[in-house]
Amino acid sequence: MAGNRQIQIVAMPEDKLSVEHFNLVESAIAEPAENQVLCRTLYLSLDPANRAWMQGATYRSALEPGQVMSGFTLAEVVRSEHPDFAEGDLVEADGGWQEYFVKDASRLSKRDRYDPLSHLMSALGVTGRTAHYGMAGIGKPQPGETVVVSAAAGATGSVAGQIAKLAGARVIGIAGGPAKCARLTDEYGFDAAIDYKNENIFQVLKATCPDGIDLYFDNVGGQTLEAVLFRMNLHGRIVCCGVVSQYDTGNPAAGPRGVPGLLVTKRLTMTGFLVGDDPQLMATADRELAQWVNDGSIKVAEDIIDGLENAPAGLVGLLAGENFGKRMVRVGA
Amino acid sequence: MAGNRQIQIVAMPEDKLSVEHFNLVESAIAEPAENQVLCRTLYLSLDPANRAWMQGATYRSALEPGQVMSGFTLAEVVRSEHPDFAEGDLVEADGGWQEYFVKDASRLSKRDRYDPLSHLMSALGVTGRTAHYGMAGIGKPQPGETVVVSAAAGATGSVAGQIAKLAGARVIGIAGGPAKCARLTDEYGFDAAIDYKNENIFQVLKATCPDGIDLYFDNVGGQTLEAVLFRMNLHGRIVCCGVVSQYDTGNPAAGPRGVPGLLVTKRLTMTGFLVGDDPQLMATADRELAQWVNDGSIKVAEDIIDGLENAPAGLVGLLAGENFGKRMVRVGA
Repeated sequence: MAGNRQIQIVAMPEDKLSVEHFNLVESAIAEPAENQVLCRTLYLSLDPANRAWMQGATYRSALEPGQVMSGFTLAEVVRSEHPDFAEGDLVEADGGWQEYFVKDASRLSKRDRYDPLSHLMSALGVTGRTAHYGMAGIGKPQPGETVVVSAAAGATGSVAGQIAKLAGARVIGIAGGPAKCARLTDEYGFDAAIDYKNENIFQVLKATCPDGIDLYFDNVGGQTLEAVLFRMNLHGRIVCCGVVSQYDTGNPAAGPRGVPGLLVTKRLTMTGFLVGDDPQLMATADRELAQWVNDGSIKVAEDIIDGLENAPAGLVGLLAGENFGKRMVRVGA
Repeated sequence: MAGNRQIQIVAMPEDKLSVEHFNLVESAIAEPAENQVLCRTLYLSLDPANRAWMQGATYRSALEPGQVMSGFTLAEVVRSEHPDFAEGDLVEADGGWQEYFVKDASRLSKRDRYDPLSHLMSALGVTGRTAHYGMAGIGKPQPGETVVVSAAAGATGSVAGQIAKLAGARVIGIAGGPAKCARLTDEYGFDAAIDYKNENIFQVLKATCPDGIDLYFDNVGGQTLEAVLFRMNLHGRIVCCGVVSQYDTGNPAAGPRGVPGLLVTKRLTMTGFLVGDDPQLMATADRELAQWVNDGSIKVAEDIIDGLENAPAGLVGLLAGENFGKRMVRVGA
């Protein structure tokens, strides 16, 4: 075996992230101790949240310079020192931006193989589960309701919108640029799409949601959330999945006007969530996603980059919104 | 009968409200038509929301210059042209800032007399019901939880905090000035009080809520909400009752930082409400409030001003936070 190529954080970004914040190094492949497992990375997930981890402690402790960059991975067991894992097993783990990693067995989850493997990182992975958990599990769209999804061309949004469609709702996606918007309506079944980069979101929301908005699946926060708040119907629900508009900056903006004023006058509920807190919702998500991906009810959007060395540029581009669907890096698959 | 003294709106406030925005006039007492009722105002409620109604449409249409100022009243029937109401009946209505008003019978609610009558405007009236509806009905404090209430010396907050105490929670009130804070802990059973005018709310929240905050009953929004968000525990609940910090201004501030970011990472829920949407919660509120006021479990705080002509100064002072408990004007009681 050769060495282990890793991407380390050189310096923390003070404003926008760039490839200069990362460095490719090569180190020896670590040896698993008792109860540990050596894994080889197949796919590395790129997620907007990666950037948020560089802003300070969130739901996990903050990243620091000199560390291997953190990231979610699909990997294969190379050598196991724990009875529950054997060579060749497919596992999920926070393996980081590297070709090989050693983890305690307790930090690994086994997965069944699927063809294509990449779907285990997209609609059948964390982002698909997040979409189901937040949309079906928390938002609960009803037939005939108007549902808005932001970052709708992203990994989570593209699945969340399709789940709302399956529930019989009218679904409007918000995305950046005419090409993404066209794909949402032409290929992914959205009823309408709003190009927040080129359209006045307040006006277009009014035109595309003449009956107001019953449910908003929010991936972005910021001004988009502010605009949607003004169009929410009485007793509407907002599911808070992420704040991608505020991740790639050293100076997060103030919150949206209308919080909490419009929450009171419109009796709105905003619910933040992280996927996985409720095992029952997770079980439902896994069962339904598998069914819907298998039978084609959900169309899987993937954006696969080749080579670990391209992960930094891939994340920078993701934050700039250049992807359609789930962006991941093929490392050793 | 003499004429009907009324307070009209002269001009809409562009920034802070002052007594100059109102004018006392005298008009003839109106005659009730069929299905209408002539009422004599006993008590006029002063509420922070009165000022919000002057900012534009909220859950009711906007007020305009030349109108009699709107306000919630406890009144007595003088003459009825509807079979359900008789002279001497006690009623609640949006009677406005005037000594007499005529309403369609459908806009009146009968109330049983209570001694003192003023309690029907405070703990047994809209503000007490609001406190119960939001705290017990939506927030649902649990024994041992840490509950924070803002505008805790106000009409709603003072009752909301006591309801959380009755549920077995540890309750911290936020209020303006040392005198109010002392009364909250010494007379109203709060476990601690924070003087937002003289203390650093971030630091004092840390000291008074060492185990974090499980439930926040928010009457103010703005920077107080922002500070509380940072101390909320995972899966915490925020009940949004009002935004008094933003009512008396022509230029509402941006929303709190941390929305929606902290909602996601901490899995928080924010729920806006207006009292009365759920009849079952209202019935429970009325039953429990009557019991708790009767047996002394809830101490009623009232701040009664005499004379309709003093209503404008009373509202201006309320917005400046000079009241402790429910402020109302004794008009004809």
